[in-house]
Amino acid sequence: MSDEPRIPINASVRHVHLSREHVEALFGAGHQLTWAKKLSQPGQFAAEEMVDLVGPKGTIERVRVLGPERKATQVEISRTDEFKLGIDAPIRASGNVEDTPGLRLEGPNGAVELEDGVIQAQRHIHMHPDDAERFGVKDKDWVMVRVGGERGIIFDDVLVRVSETYQLDMHLDTDEANAADLGPGATGILITGPTTVDADPND
Amino acid sequence: MSDEPRIPINASVRHVHLSREHVEALFGAGHQLTWAKKLSQPGQFAAEEMVDLVGPKGTIERVRVLGPERKATQVEISRTDEFKLGIDAPIRASGNVEDTPGLRLEGPNGAVELEDGVIQAQRHIHMHPDDAERFGVKDKDWVMVRVGGERGIIFDDVLVRVSETYQLDMHLDTDEANAADLGPGATGILITGPTTVDADPND
Repeated sequence: MSDEPRIPINASVRHVHLSREHVEALFGAGHQLTWAKKLSQPGQFAAEEMVDLVGPKGTIERVRVLGPERKATQVEISRTDEFKLGIDAPIRASGNVEDTPGLRLEGPNGAVELEDGVIQAQRHIHMHPDDAERFGVKDKDWVMVRVGGERGIIFDDVLVRVSETYQLDMHLDTDEANAADLGPGATGILITGPTTVDADPND
Repeated sequence: MSDEPRIPINASVRHVHLSREHVEALFGAGHQLTWAKKLSQPGQFAAEEMVDLVGPKGTIERVRVLGPERKATQVEISRTDEFKLGIDAPIRASGNVEDTPGLRLEGPNGAVELEDGVIQAQRHIHMHPDDAERFGVKDKDWVMVRVGGERGIIFDDVLVRVSETYQLDMHLDTDEANAADLGPGATGILITGPTTVDADPND
């Protein structure tokens, strides 16, 4: 197993992507998101800005906004968050928000009532075309990824996303990362086709 | 896959098992736990009583006490809970609390400063000996369990526990159940040895 190429895994904590219109509604006319920290995908960043998520059952405060702005606002939460907010969001690939629930966003300069855009992110791997070639997969393939440790898991239903602008990185939400007890520096092994798994946890 | 025997899966929400001494410290001298709801394992019950968990970073209120009493107090939390409380509890089988952290328990009649006893429960399956024979496993075996759905997962490092007093049931914590989007009525398929898994999520 040790010779196989490993994929870095990062947990995406709940976060919000905002449209221009909603940046202005929440933070004021003409406001620009403030760069705070580089993310794994080139050009993406965590912003200084935060918003509160207000659902029918509860509120989650100080949720990070990610930049740059997008055409449509999208809120990515975990199932744990859903129970707290009192909403039921489907599992979706980023950008696919048809028939998803909304919620209320509150910022320092105003609030937005979203009609839709709340999802649980489909677990996925970003790959540069060179990575895809190396792993023998293509954009929109479904694969499995195995992680070890005391709470080993094989994640099924992992979506491969290939783009010249991507860097190799698997994204899970916090529930998924916690279920496998993953922390900084976690990696996984790609399983692309029928393969043998061994039930011995010490292998 | 549909002909294989399926194992019921239930998520264990954070909970507390209490010793006699701690029942009295938290709820008053001579207090007896009040039966509220039957649990899957014969004789086990959710009590009416609840306590607050107080860690160095935060508090989780109204955590359910399970009965009957045990020789030693044990607190079972998820990794999500750990971040909220500010403690780092290891993954352990129930009863194995050596070198685990403690925390403060607060009840209506007093508080207890635990020196140890806080764990993340090792994922496990309770089996009657008849189930173990049917599945071809024995007490303390390690197996894998596959669950389907949109967020399919194969859980590795699943501990088999066999006893005449047990009823077939797999226990996960809430992070693990949420990672696979499991709800009421969820079931899984046991994988006991080398086997073939297919990466196609539609199988």
